Amino acid sequence: MSEAKEPSASRRAFLTTGVAAAALVPATARAKDDPAITGLPSWTTTPGEGVDARPYGTPSQYEKHVVRRNVEWLTASPVSSVNFTPLHELDGIITPNGLCFERHHAGIAEVDPGQYRLMINGLVDSQLVFTLEDLLRFPRQNHVYFLECAANGGMEWRGAQLNGCQFTHGMIHNVMYTGVKLSLLLKEAGVKTSAKWLLAEGADASGMTRSIPMEKALDDCLVAFKMNGEALRPEQGYPVRLVVPGWEGNMWVKWLRRLELGDKPWHHREETSKYTDLLESGVARRFTWEMDAKSVITSPSPQAPIKHGSGPTVLTGLAWSGRGTIPRVDVTLDGGKNWVRARIDGPSLSKSMHRFYYEFKWNGEPLLLQSRAHDSTGYVQPTKDELREVRGKNSIYHNNSIQTWHVSEKGVVENVEIS
Amino acid sequence: MSEAKEPSASRRAFLTTGVAAAALVPATARAKDDPAITGLPSWTTTPGEGVDARPYGTPSQYEKHVVRRNVEWLTASPVSSVNFTPLHELDGIITPNGLCFERHHAGIAEVDPGQYRLMINGLVDSQLVFTLEDLLRFPRQNHVYFLECAANGGMEWRGAQLNGCQFTHGMIHNVMYTGVKLSLLLKEAGVKTSAKWLLAEGADASGMTRSIPMEKALDDCLVAFKMNGEALRPEQGYPVRLVVPGWEGNMWVKWLRRLELGDKPWHHREETSKYTDLLESGVARRFTWEMDAKSVITSPSPQAPIKHGSGPTVLTGLAWSGRGTIPRVDVTLDGGKNWVRARIDGPSLSKSMHRFYYEFKWNGEPLLLQSRAHDSTGYVQPTKDELREVRGKNSIYHNNSIQTWHVSEKGVVENVEIS
Repeated sequence: MSEAKEPSASRRAFLTTGVAAAALVPATARAKDDPAITGLPSWTTTPGEGVDARPYGTPSQYEKHVVRRNVEWLTASPVSSVNFTPLHELDGIITPNGLCFERHHAGIAEVDPGQYRLMINGLVDSQLVFTLEDLLRFPRQNHVYFLECAANGGMEWRGAQLNGCQFTHGMIHNVMYTGVKLSLLLKEAGVKTSAKWLLAEGADASGMTRSIPMEKALDDCLVAFKMNGEALRPEQGYPVRLVVPGWEGNMWVKWLRRLELGDKPWHHREETSKYTDLLESGVARRFTWEMDAKSVITSPSPQAPIKHGSGPTVLTGLAWSGRGTIPRVDVTLDGGKNWVRARIDGPSLSKSMHRFYYEFKWNGEPLLLQSRAHDSTGYVQPTKDELREVRGKNSIYHNNSIQTWHVSEKGVVENVEIS
Repeated sequence: MSEAKEPSASRRAFLTTGVAAAALVPATARAKDDPAITGLPSWTTTPGEGVDARPYGTPSQYEKHVVRRNVEWLTASPVSSVNFTPLHELDGIITPNGLCFERHHAGIAEVDPGQYRLMINGLVDSQLVFTLEDLLRFPRQNHVYFLECAANGGMEWRGAQLNGCQFTHGMIHNVMYTGVKLSLLLKEAGVKTSAKWLLAEGADASGMTRSIPMEKALDDCLVAFKMNGEALRPEQGYPVRLVVPGWEGNMWVKWLRRLELGDKPWHHREETSKYTDLLESGVARRFTWEMDAKSVITSPSPQAPIKHGSGPTVLTGLAWSGRGTIPRVDVTLDGGKNWVRARIDGPSLSKSMHRFYYEFKWNGEPLLLQSRAHDSTGYVQPTKDELREVRGKNSIYHNNSIQTWHVSEKGVVENVEIS
């Protein structure tokens, strides 16, 4: 603030809210002699580069730290790896395509769209083979859906381990898909009444295959070719992937090559030795497809500490449910003693991420931050202990428990557990 | 189709719809011996590259043609240029950040976010200066809005000229913005009752300035720092731009440096010699800020011809209005003799693009395609002749008239005019 004056009536009124308290921030931070405001930076005196040099744009040179990152010890080899979305750097509900996490099992397949084919076979009246152009002749739909890996947060079952929401919760993204309803293509082939299951097969070198019950296949699944308006990215299944709204990401088969209809599940690798949830009893839960309601505070978080000291602070995060929308998110600053209702802002779409905020005036004392999502079915996100009581600690899948962040007096944030 | 069989009951029922007719497509196109389905492409036999090599992802090597393009004779120099969005290649309603059109007047300013400042001065109780971090301490909002240049379609006033919707309509994009309400920052400074206008000033070498009436400034304007979840792109005003929902793009000042409050408009260059609409009478309309309802068919279009011949065809396009939502879009295949109602799909948000579709069975004869948008205020998009009757042909701004595409028997599409 370059001049100190008595606040006007309008400002006084404002000062009674958490918002207006922010008025105190510039006052302390800057004076008349701030060269950044009194001087002339180079971009003000010298014309910049023309846009023609950037026919496909890229982020600012000052945003190089905003990238997908892996966890070296987590994956065996670069061709079977995972890169996490930098959730702590993002806002709103759309994940930009370049930052969408991706898990692959045989590297990124570079499929030639001219050679792309999709076969439908098995228990159908007519086996069909579609080119990409064939698919583009069917009616399209547009939906924003989250895609979450069942193993998102999997390393946290046995205790707080990865220090950053990019790593504890970054196996998720949320984009607008354009595609054809799977049910349209299946009706085209003529589904026999004996068909109860669908096998989705990928064209990459891992030959990813998953069994999907017909009820879901005929409900809201999409055969998608666009994400956020443009063609799917190679690591997201270019030119065509399966979209299985609300269900675990592994079923969203990429580089989709074949759809086989059968009368029973196939019990392939990715639905037996993997993507089943081993309980303490030694029994494994199977077909745990639906993603339970979950939320996480993305800032403050270990990679997004509070740098501005005490005073007005914006807490923000994401919430989602495989069952519908998120009408409510609660937030606590003291590890669950007191809960307040967060403000959800932006579109509230079914099976899509929701953005929430809670603005508060930090007193500079340590905090224990948690968020708790409620979904449109009434389901409430559980604590880690509540979840362990039912599921034990053996599984690496479907950990949708409440995350705790500890904030120190210095604003440093750490991944912790409390009981 | 690899086997020819009698269609099942379900398929026969389906064959009565335009959709099912697509079943005939694979039949003609492919047989049992299609190597693309019987063979093993390299991506199926050989693992691809790991994702770690792409911490910030890029489009497929097969999508290199999907880029922003300029029109060389249209702009004087590379530092004062415009690059158009490839609307004909996109679907859904979100424009990916790398493809968002952009117009600049002194190149792309590369602003150091650490040196970024926003000043509020003029008729306020307290002059304020905010850093980027200060702005991040205010409550945020998320909204999807279209940004359209007032000159979008400006070259078409005098006749059909540019052969592609990328060039006739590509000065528009639609993204989700995250930012702080401008009204919050103005209340922070304390707006004097004498303040009726706001001057928004950019930090680039062109010193872009526009006058905005207080009613709009206090209504829905945002001081935005994110687009589609990530930081603004440099060519979109990184780190901070003004968002003026539904109003002409030139007012959405990029690299926002200063907000001055005054009692009258400033009448700067961009609101006098530019961005005013010269009528036949020699009188110029001024302050024509609001973008009228408009639509365009993006496919088929000159850059997206019909390659598959007659039969099932998907027509798609975009519609938007600076006044609200688009409840209805009409489409004609015969230059206006017969109109049918298009199907609007995806989120219908105020001052945001809407995606529409019309599926039909092309008989292979020439077509004259047009779309006509109706907005939530009841306004209907005019024909080019209707618009010229009122505005003449002198202006290059605010051409929201109905676009006509001619489709030949070969499926070639051209920009034409009909009376």
